[in-house]
Amino acid sequence: MKNCIPVALALALVISACQQKKETTVENNTRPAYALAIHGGAGTIKRENLSPELEAEYRSALDSALTIGETILKNGGSALDAVTQTVAWLEDSPLFNAGCGAVFTHEGRNEHDASIMDGRNQAAGASGGTSVVKNPITLARAVMEHSPHVLLTGKGAEQFAIENGLDTVSPDYFYTERRWNALQKALEEEKEKGLSEYWNNTQSTYKFGTVGCVALDNAGNLAAGTSTGGMTNKRWNRLGDTPVIGAGTYASNDACAVSCTGHGEYFIRYAVAHDVWAQMVYKGLSLEAAADAVVMKKLVEKGGEGGLIAVDKAGNIALPFNSAGMYRGYVKPGERKVMIYKED
Amino acid sequence: MKNCIPVALALALVISACQQKKETTVENNTRPAYALAIHGGAGTIKRENLSPELEAEYRSALDSALTIGETILKNGGSALDAVTQTVAWLEDSPLFNAGCGAVFTHEGRNEHDASIMDGRNQAAGASGGTSVVKNPITLARAVMEHSPHVLLTGKGAEQFAIENGLDTVSPDYFYTERRWNALQKALEEEKEKGLSEYWNNTQSTYKFGTVGCVALDNAGNLAAGTSTGGMTNKRWNRLGDTPVIGAGTYASNDACAVSCTGHGEYFIRYAVAHDVWAQMVYKGLSLEAAADAVVMKKLVEKGGEGGLIAVDKAGNIALPFNSAGMYRGYVKPGERKVMIYKED
Repeated sequence: MKNCIPVALALALVISACQQKKETTVENNTRPAYALAIHGGAGTIKRENLSPELEAEYRSALDSALTIGETILKNGGSALDAVTQTVAWLEDSPLFNAGCGAVFTHEGRNEHDASIMDGRNQAAGASGGTSVVKNPITLARAVMEHSPHVLLTGKGAEQFAIENGLDTVSPDYFYTERRWNALQKALEEEKEKGLSEYWNNTQSTYKFGTVGCVALDNAGNLAAGTSTGGMTNKRWNRLGDTPVIGAGTYASNDACAVSCTGHGEYFIRYAVAHDVWAQMVYKGLSLEAAADAVVMKKLVEKGGEGGLIAVDKAGNIALPFNSAGMYRGYVKPGERKVMIYKED
Repeated sequence: MKNCIPVALALALVISACQQKKETTVENNTRPAYALAIHGGAGTIKRENLSPELEAEYRSALDSALTIGETILKNGGSALDAVTQTVAWLEDSPLFNAGCGAVFTHEGRNEHDASIMDGRNQAAGASGGTSVVKNPITLARAVMEHSPHVLLTGKGAEQFAIENGLDTVSPDYFYTERRWNALQKALEEEKEKGLSEYWNNTQSTYKFGTVGCVALDNAGNLAAGTSTGGMTNKRWNRLGDTPVIGAGTYASNDACAVSCTGHGEYFIRYAVAHDVWAQMVYKGLSLEAAADAVVMKKLVEKGGEGGLIAVDKAGNIALPFNSAGMYRGYVKPGERKVMIYKED
């Protein structure tokens, strides 16, 4: 498997070293100094399909990603920086369907989607369908911070990335043999079954995957970010829920930060990330109850496979998923866990 | 002004004639047999800026659009068909910023966005940034009905339209002198003020506009659809809230159907259409109270200019806007009104 360079790790350490170390205690004793959760996609992830070596690689990568985010947060960095750098690190890993390691479209391209949201003011940025931007999450952040828009797409989004000095790469950079083989398998299956049968009955095998991060920082600010290559064999410049604020990503300091992964069309139709926020704010549900109501009840009833990660303003974390597995992890002061299967 | 062909009117009459006329009374006496509302965009629409002749043209066009939808509904047609045909008619009118009459991008192109949602099952379809599809709302509907996806963009969405036999036209078809002149004015202003000042301080003058329709049919089904050319002088393949399910469009039979118009970035960040639904379902607010809470309170506090049209499952209609004016109208059995200004 190709080994992309995890430059974000070095960058995070430099950022941390440059930042003045701040007091990490907080006024509210019930709120931890920081909390961060990550996901690397949900789907048919079963122990029998993952070799012990590959499983160990995934667990190690998730653990490294937690370190990226935690290092920033425990040195007084912002939730927004922690989310950006952690997602960028996951994009650089070829293990996950985002950045390097993204799945291929029907035409054999990689088209990346990403979004980010700042819980302080609901500022948001997103990009859809880019093929040359090395870290789509940094593009989403640049859209949020340096454009009057929220959602840029395709060639225009790439032009904006170039104008803003973001790293671009040859489309070859994103190639991994594993994802290329998955496309070949999907194309064969689609040919055998026909388009309709293919899409209706093989939704969960290898078609999706996403990376995401949510964080609460010492100042009480929340942020969420999500990045993906979308679905294997997607076509017609399809965008999923990842670049859709309210569907794949939402953050508001008054309640929670949410990042989703799964069958994106369902997450758009039920505005999943915003729904978790809405059930907390309007119904007064806890984070866990709101996240469960959406993922384990509504989405299950509707047939929408996937999961989400969320953190609330008190530092509570929820990681529900209705699929076989979800690459995930979280960290708070004194607590750290990486999980893949239900039984973890 | 160029006169695009209102083929939808003829089509609607044919559809109506072909449909078996059904009983229009309903079980629930409090619910009208049908209800439909439309908008043609919100913004700085003041009496002093609109000549009596142009105002009359707008009122007449809105009235004709109501007739399109009402004809379908009162002959037992579905909310989905009424929404599709009414929006298509508004797209064909050069008066509104959608289809023919759409505003121009920074580069002098027309890039159309549209979405539609079926309240029966939350099926949804959307297209972003197409330049050759004559009626983007029909593309959104085709995405919903004939693809496994919800949101297609750019060239891929156009390819899908062609594969599905939708009408395509030369990009010149969408040209109107009025919108071209508006772009020239915007480009001059941007040059004078600089990009940042331009976007921050001239948001409302002539930059947005949308068309939309929401409907309740005799079977109790809700639907919503929205279509736009976006913002004058938009760039980088920007998508606004119109193709974003949950932001510009939402429909669910358990509560309401909503179509938005205004400064799209705010409507995305606050997931406006879904928020109206959420405040009804989770807080138990009436349609009017929920719509007002979002448009007249939340958006006003945040600086998001615009409005929305909504109909609930009982046939109540809300048409709130926080801008100077909004082209709008509604129709129910025995009731029909077309409005532009606040004092209408």
